[in-house]
Amino acid sequence: MIRAGIIGATGYAGGELVRLLLGHKDVEIVWYGSRSYIDQKYADVYRNVFKLVEDVCKGDDLLKLSGEVDVIFTATPQGYLGSVLNEDILSRCKVIDLSADYRLKDVGVYEEWYKIEHKSPELIGEAVYGLCEINRESIKKARLIANPGCYTTCSILSVYPLLKEGLIDKDSIIIDAKSGVSGAGRGAKVANLYCEVNESMKAYGVTTHRHTPEIEEQLSYACDSKIKVLFTPHLAPMNRGILVTAYASLKENVNEEDVRAAYEKYYSDEYFIRILDKGVCPETRWVEGSNFYDVNAVTDKRTNRVIMMGALDNMVKGAAGQAVQNMNLLFGLKENEGLCITPVFP
Amino acid sequence: MIRAGIIGATGYAGGELVRLLLGHKDVEIVWYGSRSYIDQKYADVYRNVFKLVEDVCKGDDLLKLSGEVDVIFTATPQGYLGSVLNEDILSRCKVIDLSADYRLKDVGVYEEWYKIEHKSPELIGEAVYGLCEINRESIKKARLIANPGCYTTCSILSVYPLLKEGLIDKDSIIIDAKSGVSGAGRGAKVANLYCEVNESMKAYGVTTHRHTPEIEEQLSYACDSKIKVLFTPHLAPMNRGILVTAYASLKENVNEEDVRAAYEKYYSDEYFIRILDKGVCPETRWVEGSNFYDVNAVTDKRTNRVIMMGALDNMVKGAAGQAVQNMNLLFGLKENEGLCITPVFP
Amino acid sequence: MIRAGIIGATGYAGGELVRLLLGHKDVEIVWYGSRSYIDQKYADVYRNVFKLVEDVCKGDDLLKLSGEVDVIFTATPQGYLGSVLNEDILSRCKVIDLSADYRLKDVGVYEEWYKIEHKSPELIGEAVYGLCEINRESIKKARLIANPGCYTTCSILSVYPLLKEGLIDKDSIIIDAKSGVSGAGRGAKVANLYCEVNESMKAYGVTTHRHTPEIEEQLSYACDSKIKVLFTPHLAPMNRGILVTAYASLKENVNEEDVRAAYEKYYSDEYFIRILDKGVCPETRWVEGSNFYDVNAVTDKRTNRVIMMGALDNMVKGAAGQAVQNMNLLFGLKENEGLCITPVFP
Amino acid sequence: MIRAGIIGATGYAGGELVRLLLGHKDVEIVWYGSRSYIDQKYADVYRNVFKLVEDVCKGDDLLKLSGEVDVIFTATPQGYLGSVLNEDILSRCKVIDLSADYRLKDVGVYEEWYKIEHKSPELIGEAVYGLCEINRESIKKARLIANPGCYTTCSILSVYPLLKEGLIDKDSIIIDAKSGVSGAGRGAKVANLYCEVNESMKAYGVTTHRHTPEIEEQLSYACDSKIKVLFTPHLAPMNRGILVTAYASLKENVNEEDVRAAYEKYYSDEYFIRILDKGVCPETRWVEGSNFYDVNAVTDKRTNRVIMMGALDNMVKGAAGQAVQNMNLLFGLKENEGLCITPVFP
Repeated sequence: MIRAGIIGATGYAGGELVRLLLGHKDVEIVWYGSRSYIDQKYADVYRNVFKLVEDVCKGDDLLKLSGEVDVIFTATPQGYLGSVLNEDILSRCKVIDLSADYRLKDVGVYEEWYKIEHKSPELIGEAVYGLCEINRESIKKARLIANPGCYTTCSILSVYPLLKEGLIDKDSIIIDAKSGVSGAGRGAKVANLYCEVNESMKAYGVTTHRHTPEIEEQLSYACDSKIKVLFTPHLAPMNRGILVTAYASLKENVNEEDVRAAYEKYYSDEYFIRILDKGVCPETRWVEGSNFYDVNAVTDKRTNRVIMMGALDNMVKGAAGQAVQNMNLLFGLKENEGLCITPVFP
Repeated sequence: MIRAGIIGATGYAGGELVRLLLGHKDVEIVWYGSRSYIDQKYADVYRNVFKLVEDVCKGDDLLKLSGEVDVIFTATPQGYLGSVLNEDILSRCKVIDLSADYRLKDVGVYEEWYKIEHKSPELIGEAVYGLCEINRESIKKARLIANPGCYTTCSILSVYPLLKEGLIDKDSIIIDAKSGVSGAGRGAKVANLYCEVNESMKAYGVTTHRHTPEIEEQLSYACDSKIKVLFTPHLAPMNRGILVTAYASLKENVNEEDVRAAYEKYYSDEYFIRILDKGVCPETRWVEGSNFYDVNAVTDKRTNRVIMMGALDNMVKGAAGQAVQNMNLLFGLKENEGLCITPVFP
Repeated sequence: MIRAGIIGATGYAGGELVRLLLGHKDVEIVWYGSRSYIDQKYADVYRNVFKLVEDVCKGDDLLKLSGEVDVIFTATPQGYLGSVLNEDILSRCKVIDLSADYRLKDVGVYEEWYKIEHKSPELIGEAVYGLCEINRESIKKARLIANPGCYTTCSILSVYPLLKEGLIDKDSIIIDAKSGVSGAGRGAKVANLYCEVNESMKAYGVTTHRHTPEIEEQLSYACDSKIKVLFTPHLAPMNRGILVTAYASLKENVNEEDVRAAYEKYYSDEYFIRILDKGVCPETRWVEGSNFYDVNAVTDKRTNRVIMMGALDNMVKGAAGQAVQNMNLLFGLKENEGLCITPVFP
Repeated sequence: MIRAGIIGATGYAGGELVRLLLGHKDVEIVWYGSRSYIDQKYADVYRNVFKLVEDVCKGDDLLKLSGEVDVIFTATPQGYLGSVLNEDILSRCKVIDLSADYRLKDVGVYEEWYKIEHKSPELIGEAVYGLCEINRESIKKARLIANPGCYTTCSILSVYPLLKEGLIDKDSIIIDAKSGVSGAGRGAKVANLYCEVNESMKAYGVTTHRHTPEIEEQLSYACDSKIKVLFTPHLAPMNRGILVTAYASLKENVNEEDVRAAYEKYYSDEYFIRILDKGVCPETRWVEGSNFYDVNAVTDKRTNRVIMMGALDNMVKGAAGQAVQNMNLLFGLKENEGLCITPVFP
């Protein structure tokens, strides 16, 4: 039995980790960390687990925790883990970080986009970017996993095969993403009140969203060259789900079959990636509650572009589900252990 | 391995049966029946199971089906099963009916409320009303299960302990229920279009809803006397969930502790029933996707009444989940096999 | 031109007042009061009025304000107006209070339900309860209007005619109300975040909601006798709207025609009250954005009860619209001036 | 008093025309045309106008109607008006067509994209494309107005100034649009049921949506050269609203100030166009129910692109509101007569 601790267990991503780990036969959650709710019953905060979880919330003493568990999940604000993680902790247990602290290799880029000083830059090097379908082998050997962001996972997976195969112009990538509201977290802000979000769509963080450099770094590895993408996130009135619509110019003589072949080359053996049938567009409702990522692409002869479309549940493949997938890899379990969940519809 | 067939697999309840049975280790679905989609891939209708289900939809030849399976689930329009079920079929396999055809013992009441002639009244007698928490032992021995309606399950479970214990005036029961839209089914009707339902609340079927006699019959058993209830359903702008707020007059000298004790007497050992802590009201979000039914009650000294509140997911405990629970009982499995699902939030 | 000041202009009710008064040809808003946003442009807080309102937010100096305007609307937290209102202010301008401070004649009841000491009980006596359809003549002569609450307006109007005409048992009234989320205000609370409210229904404030004594007091006037009602509010996942489903026992020999006649007797000449055709249930979508209140009732011979149903927009007839209707009466304008708004659908 | 007839009065756009014209002091609706509801009370179909409209629905005898009214609005399926309109009708009254029949000057393009034979191509020439802010003077003199589509209005207005001023590369335009569900009409289709649309986002009509050639034709006039755009519509779970996020490459040395100056040059005097403050992104909630179109743009130095963002209410500025605006121009009224509506929030 793997003993797991969660720091930030009362945020939405933390809550989703709890849901998924409760259904994982090889894991026991032994630490529900939540600074805001210390000593309160966890099930009083998330009543979905009433009668399923009896624990009370604990604090965030990472060093103590590292001695009691095999793996720590941190679903914490940016900067937190960077400020407390050290060799001692990493030598005692695996750490899977759902924040952005170790996702960017260049600490300067991190500090520029996050406006936070990084307190443990020496650990960035060994962190492995936990996008399982792309970095599987490195993940297996890691101590510290930088679990990808929700927008990022959906964006990278949508574009990666075409870029890797050289089918698209690497300077032409535009990513238009739409997210459910849970991605904004559980903080009490007017902007996320029901009446502010319901019945509305908006773009936000235009040209400045922090997931941009993360997407760029990973896609740069795919084409062996530094690239820039234009990334525009939007807020949609729904609880869960990310839909990415990405655009790029096709290289000469690339057609729809080439595009499809590229996705199949990289993804046809992947359990969690579903390449939809020709003509079928991804919809977030079909992946809700599951770790699936659905993808498809359409080419437009009129403008010689390709439209790459991906959908995932931001709370699962975009956060907690991917974290569990990473854990499975770290501990030599079946990669989809605890994650064979049929999406919930409607 | 239990071999299961589903008739009406492309309705919402049928789709939910598929989701639940895919996660049940002892069951294999061998027949996806759907008159409207014969020969089409099931996963083209419900893309949530893309890559998980390869079958095409078949027709509704119940006799043929009964020879190939251990259990048939019928999630079909009222009157369908009544018109085709016979001894031959029942002698070959178990039948769990999610429609109302065998729920009411008095065929006259059925025909009055449903405006349908019942074609097999001789089978009504042996049908067992599949409310597991109340009829568990009879269910285990049955061939034909009348799986309760969604409103009904929530209403009966909310009122049953107080009525059974004689704590409330049996002529004073008023049930005000609120349902998500999936309860209205997948038929293409203007009234259920997104823009007609969204941002609105309404009562409907006032004094005439067909679940009324079903609630009355079952509650009459509880108090050994024919009773009438006033039942008012409402449509709420959400996919899933039923919330029942039921009112009754307390008998003399009954207090909040007596009320709580009654719920505990009948439900404290039930896996799927969660009696909430004092002062906590049920909310449909906390049971979504699961087979849990959450309940609590508040007494009002000012008016000497009790407010009984229950919440469940109409697609699960109110339909497919309860059907699976019944199947588990019929086949001697653990009652919660395949149903230990943590509710999905948010 | 009537000069109007609004205190609490950046809450939802305040914002709705702005919307309505901008469309009122006889009114000019000269003071946008908002302690939280002083010196910020009002249109930066409510961008729906961008280019329509150029004013910046001001504070809440009521005495100063009273010298500059003809009418003050206070859409403020409970207790605020009670603590600052005085004869000086009332002698200079009319005051329409959207809070509860002057709604209850018995200061003891106020202090018991609101847990606030009332600082100006001497002014309660002259305040007129601003339910126009019932207190029209008193309103015209008032200086201080206690504008009714949203639940209250919908509840009272639904029950009033039957109680006044003695058609129902006065001790049997149960009110089950469903409200949109804007009724909870614009405060930044976790409980009102999109993901907490969306896809869920719940009761709250069961037996303790503060609108209870207000409903009771007004209905007591109708039947000339102190009555108690059981009032249960619910939160529904929608921006606007209140639906009331009220239940009562019919007195002997009262039938559906008597019930209808009672509504017609009191409401058939009322512009803002629409008695729906026989068999049609009120739905909140049909009144959205307007000052209409839709009503209908169904009698149930089986249980000898009546189901009274009413729908209104909590922001309009339940708050700002009714306040404007009161203002029209106070200043001798046409009662529906500025309020002839067709409901917005969908 | 202008006498108006509406054909297709029971569709969503027709219903919105009714709402707006009821609030227009110079117009009287004398014909509520609806083939599906002939002889039924209009207010039984759209209960928002209960007590406001007493008329029953009539058929679609356009010739007869043209003799009784000053203006006909057709909110009808594609191909309908094209098959019945003729010189006789046009000589008797103005026609404002909300369908696409006369929007495209090249009948071949119409027939290719709509798969419908055009029955009156000889009338296409005189039809004026009713985008008031761009074609105001021609509209004033027209008999037949081709009222623009919802996606189209939002897309064209967002891109027009930059293209007209030559600030962007005309071959680089990508339009990613998100629409509320009312744009899909009131037809009873499974795809538009509440449970199918709620809690989901999807793209649809990718590379094939019929509004594409309409956008291209109008934008081609702006830059005096045939251009192609990549247009991708999405369905968002909300009743109303269109949000356009459009992308283009900036020409050399064009900066944010140039971009802003272009919008101001064309739009600063337009009542219905609101250029938002620097850094503020359009949100559909701020225009709901009104004829406003909100716009802003952000330049991205990193990729040398511009992100153009626009929001409008698809039922108002995207359909009925624009139709009324056109009517005002046709009849020499104030352009915003009946359209000075403050957006409804929340």
